Amino acid sequence: MIRVAVVGATGYAGAELVRLLSGHPHITLTVVTSRSYAGKAFDHIYPAMTGVVNLGCEEYDIDRVSENADVIFTALPHKLPMEIVPGLVEKGKKVIDLSADFRFQDAGRYEAHYQPHTAKGLLSRTVYGLSEVYADDIREATLVGNPGCYPTSVLLPLVPLVMRGLIELNTLIADSKSGVSGAGRSPSLTTLYCAVSESFKAYKVAVHRHNPEMEDVLSRQAGRDVTITFVPHLVPMSRGMETTTYATPAAGVGLEDIRTCLSEFYAGRRFVRLCADGRPPDTLNVRGTNFCDIGLALDKRCNRLILMSTIDNLVKGAAGQAVQNMNIMLGIDESTGLMPVPYPL
Amino acid sequence: MIRVAVVGATGYAGAELVRLLSGHPHITLTVVTSRSYAGKAFDHIYPAMTGVVNLGCEEYDIDRVSENADVIFTALPHKLPMEIVPGLVEKGKKVIDLSADFRFQDAGRYEAHYQPHTAKGLLSRTVYGLSEVYADDIREATLVGNPGCYPTSVLLPLVPLVMRGLIELNTLIADSKSGVSGAGRSPSLTTLYCAVSESFKAYKVAVHRHNPEMEDVLSRQAGRDVTITFVPHLVPMSRGMETTTYATPAAGVGLEDIRTCLSEFYAGRRFVRLCADGRPPDTLNVRGTNFCDIGLALDKRCNRLILMSTIDNLVKGAAGQAVQNMNIMLGIDESTGLMPVPYPL
Amino acid sequence: MIRVAVVGATGYAGAELVRLLSGHPHITLTVVTSRSYAGKAFDHIYPAMTGVVNLGCEEYDIDRVSENADVIFTALPHKLPMEIVPGLVEKGKKVIDLSADFRFQDAGRYEAHYQPHTAKGLLSRTVYGLSEVYADDIREATLVGNPGCYPTSVLLPLVPLVMRGLIELNTLIADSKSGVSGAGRSPSLTTLYCAVSESFKAYKVAVHRHNPEMEDVLSRQAGRDVTITFVPHLVPMSRGMETTTYATPAAGVGLEDIRTCLSEFYAGRRFVRLCADGRPPDTLNVRGTNFCDIGLALDKRCNRLILMSTIDNLVKGAAGQAVQNMNIMLGIDESTGLMPVPYPL
Amino acid sequence: MIRVAVVGATGYAGAELVRLLSGHPHITLTVVTSRSYAGKAFDHIYPAMTGVVNLGCEEYDIDRVSENADVIFTALPHKLPMEIVPGLVEKGKKVIDLSADFRFQDAGRYEAHYQPHTAKGLLSRTVYGLSEVYADDIREATLVGNPGCYPTSVLLPLVPLVMRGLIELNTLIADSKSGVSGAGRSPSLTTLYCAVSESFKAYKVAVHRHNPEMEDVLSRQAGRDVTITFVPHLVPMSRGMETTTYATPAAGVGLEDIRTCLSEFYAGRRFVRLCADGRPPDTLNVRGTNFCDIGLALDKRCNRLILMSTIDNLVKGAAGQAVQNMNIMLGIDESTGLMPVPYPL
Repeated sequence: MIRVAVVGATGYAGAELVRLLSGHPHITLTVVTSRSYAGKAFDHIYPAMTGVVNLGCEEYDIDRVSENADVIFTALPHKLPMEIVPGLVEKGKKVIDLSADFRFQDAGRYEAHYQPHTAKGLLSRTVYGLSEVYADDIREATLVGNPGCYPTSVLLPLVPLVMRGLIELNTLIADSKSGVSGAGRSPSLTTLYCAVSESFKAYKVAVHRHNPEMEDVLSRQAGRDVTITFVPHLVPMSRGMETTTYATPAAGVGLEDIRTCLSEFYAGRRFVRLCADGRPPDTLNVRGTNFCDIGLALDKRCNRLILMSTIDNLVKGAAGQAVQNMNIMLGIDESTGLMPVPYPL
Repeated sequence: MIRVAVVGATGYAGAELVRLLSGHPHITLTVVTSRSYAGKAFDHIYPAMTGVVNLGCEEYDIDRVSENADVIFTALPHKLPMEIVPGLVEKGKKVIDLSADFRFQDAGRYEAHYQPHTAKGLLSRTVYGLSEVYADDIREATLVGNPGCYPTSVLLPLVPLVMRGLIELNTLIADSKSGVSGAGRSPSLTTLYCAVSESFKAYKVAVHRHNPEMEDVLSRQAGRDVTITFVPHLVPMSRGMETTTYATPAAGVGLEDIRTCLSEFYAGRRFVRLCADGRPPDTLNVRGTNFCDIGLALDKRCNRLILMSTIDNLVKGAAGQAVQNMNIMLGIDESTGLMPVPYPL
Repeated sequence: MIRVAVVGATGYAGAELVRLLSGHPHITLTVVTSRSYAGKAFDHIYPAMTGVVNLGCEEYDIDRVSENADVIFTALPHKLPMEIVPGLVEKGKKVIDLSADFRFQDAGRYEAHYQPHTAKGLLSRTVYGLSEVYADDIREATLVGNPGCYPTSVLLPLVPLVMRGLIELNTLIADSKSGVSGAGRSPSLTTLYCAVSESFKAYKVAVHRHNPEMEDVLSRQAGRDVTITFVPHLVPMSRGMETTTYATPAAGVGLEDIRTCLSEFYAGRRFVRLCADGRPPDTLNVRGTNFCDIGLALDKRCNRLILMSTIDNLVKGAAGQAVQNMNIMLGIDESTGLMPVPYPL
Repeated sequence: MIRVAVVGATGYAGAELVRLLSGHPHITLTVVTSRSYAGKAFDHIYPAMTGVVNLGCEEYDIDRVSENADVIFTALPHKLPMEIVPGLVEKGKKVIDLSADFRFQDAGRYEAHYQPHTAKGLLSRTVYGLSEVYADDIREATLVGNPGCYPTSVLLPLVPLVMRGLIELNTLIADSKSGVSGAGRSPSLTTLYCAVSESFKAYKVAVHRHNPEMEDVLSRQAGRDVTITFVPHLVPMSRGMETTTYATPAAGVGLEDIRTCLSEFYAGRRFVRLCADGRPPDTLNVRGTNFCDIGLALDKRCNRLILMSTIDNLVKGAAGQAVQNMNIMLGIDESTGLMPVPYPL
């Protein structure tokens, strides 16, 4: 059994990691840490887990964690992982970080949108954990920067098309919609039930930090600088994310070329599912799962390709993809423990 | 007091008309009709109205309606209004039709997306009831084709910009999101609570019938053929609609030009409110009201204008705008009876 | 025009007062205060109110308030009103307090569940603002203690039956369910969207502070000590409250006696509506309104009376009843400005 | 591998069976039937299941089903199972029926609330599938009548107390609240999103068919006729059920006696969890799981015991308990395949 620790286990992504890992057949969860709840039983914070998870929350301690875990997930606000991950890597641990700290190859881009990077030396050894795109690198990696939820939903339909030159790179627009768990578990006026119910709105319009993250990957895969207009919106639901992406197809490219490209690229990857024409993906169909469902349409009159993708922001958009990456790093089937049985409602 | 009838009063738009009209100080609601509920009290169908509306639902009868009403709202599925509206107009009644039947100036466009038009003769005398744009024509009109909800939310921010040439007409994309009341009150698998909750999805991608309606108006105001890519989505909420529209600004046009244009166009029109920069409109802020809130942003890196607009799909998107049009037709303040007091939650 | 101030205008009840008062034909809202938002425009906090309310939030100042208002609503957390209300009353102002501070005739009962009462001298001059029960006293009152939401929903169906001896007083159980706005606007883990959605649970079981408030009134009306088991629950919705009350009918009392009693007691009071048999009240039917709908059933096999009542916790359960009380105090129709037009959805 | 068929697989309970069974390690799902969708792929009806369940829906055929399945779940509207179950039992199949047809030991009670019973001969060989109470009988059973959702939530906290004489049997009141999936998947006006959102109401007050089912079991366990007042309510959520039960403790019985009784009765049964004092059970904590969480409180002033229980109406209230019963019938651990990993949100 592989011993696993979750650092920052009581935020939404951390708790989702605990949920998924507690059902994983090849690992043992040994340590869960929480600054806010150290000393309390995990199931006191999440009573749903009573009888399922019997661990207490601890303060983070590098010795305690490294002595008891082979794989460490860090689910902390950005900036904190830069401080603790280097020590863990030095001790030979495999680390999967769910913050933004290790997502950028280009430290400058990170620093332009976050803060000075204090662990630049690690970046060249870090792999961006978009599982279906970078599996070969992830397999060899010691440190994985797990993708943001929005970039995951934007990149999965786009990357294959960008790599094969099927779309015009200066025409990209991603209109994303996220359930409110994406905003995290810290109480705020904007995430109160009464503020969210019957509310739909855009936020951080064209200034969201996930925008440069997408562009970092798109540019790398395109071999040249790519920009994309990105507008996130908040949906009155707990989990789920849908992105509708608009792009002009390259000259001569039709809907079938797009479908074939995606279908070939994702052949054998069970977590990406292409939807039939006329049946757009629905967040409800991926709720609680690691699936990314992708739909396609072409507005012929305007010659505009429309890509729709849905994920569960906490699973494929965070904890699930992190576990998938762990599976790949461990050389086991990538879907192990990812319980691919969705709720029909 | 003006005597008013609502034909088709038990669908969502019809019931909303009854709600708004029952609080209108200058009118008396005299007749409400319903094919499904003829013979039943209106407050038996909508118990919320007990003690507020004391009318029984009747079968539609042209004589009964014309003898008892000066203004008639028809809130029926399209095709039915084509059959009954001509008779009402002939009797000199003012008619506001909430279906698609009288929204198109060009019968061909209607016929391409609906069915043969059987009252073409009336089209030249019909005014499209986008209140803030066509108020002068509405004031003189006998027959108003009340706009669809999606077109209202798309056109209000776009029309002034199109008229003044501030945006590139071949770059328009409208990504719209609607609460589920837009689908009407007929029970169906897709509008069940369990199908809608935690579900977000696109539907009728680039093939929705409101698309040609938008293009009809945009083309008219631009003086040449305009197309727009339109993708509607379903949001897990009862009421509310948000549209995020993307367009490339014309050469040399900046965000302040856009703001000034909208601000001038809607000066003195209380139902259109421009949001401050960085505070995108929220459907919750217009719930139950006739407001359309509009927000703006510019993605400078991509040179792309982002317009966001929110309405209540049943009020400004249907019944409220219909009452506003009635007010304009009657020569009274357009906001009369539109109870401009929103809920803070 | 009567000049009105709202002290504590940015909590949910305060904002609802502002909403209702801004549509009231006989008053002018002159001052709104807020500790947290002093210096900001009210519509900056509640953008829904843009173009409707044009007041800035101020720090509370007794001189400023008394010079500019004839009637003052205090919508503050309990304990604060005890400090400021005496000064206002001394200046001859009419005050309606929405906290618990002036709801109890018996200071001892208040002190047992809250804290020492520092304005006991006012209690004998204070009227409990259950509008339909104490209208005669309210008419003459200077200071009204506006009822809690739960007590309102429990007392309206019970009080007439208790007064006429139709039920066994030692058998009372009230099982109440409230929308989450009842918990107020301060961010907390328990009122986050993700904690509320798909969550239904009891809380403060048999220890809620509204329990003694109910018993204070029931005992007064019964002429002897009455206890009632009270269990509140939280419902995943913003607004609305339903209470199902169980009681054993007195010997020989049948369902028709109960109906007649309630029907007579509430004759002429438009905000209490009795539902037809077999059609239990629904919170959706009173949303945004000042109505209290009451339904009745008898479980003959168990000889148990079942009373169901629904209110909007922010309207009849707080701000609406407060405005109703102001109307009564001013000698105008109690429904003035209470916009009795509910949403059908 | 045990071969299993689900008859009636496209209703909510049937689809939930398919979900749970598709993750069960010891069984193979061989046949799924559906009257409405025969000929269509199961994942066409439930796209969430794409890549997970690869079966087509078939018309029911007794030969086809019995040749391909050892265990059969019938998830049909009542009355239909009476027609098909006898044939399956005759062929030596193990059958778990989720309708009401085989829940009553006393055919007269069934007939009083449903219709004439056409398979009375089977009733003496049928076991009521309340897993924690009747496990010994279930182990030997050929035919299990799976309990209704409301009875499950009412009986689990009550049965041990009734069996040990800890409560007064003539004082029972169950106030239940259910998510809307309990109403099934057939479209109706009352289950539309717009009718459910922001709506809370009682229905079938004291006349629900689950009332006699509860009384059948309570009477059997008490050894004498027991009645209970039962009022179901509808909650705006998809899944989940909470019941608050009121009873007078027997003379001399305190809260600790109650807790000890339940704790002993459910020792070793992992699906029943007792909540700590002051932390009432929450439907969110059992969502998607087979758990029943039970909380306790005593209103000392009124000498009234308050029991709170939460289940997922589709899991422990239907499909999950059915699978648990299958496990017991097969002699394997009762929790096999029931994925005891809840969502923290």
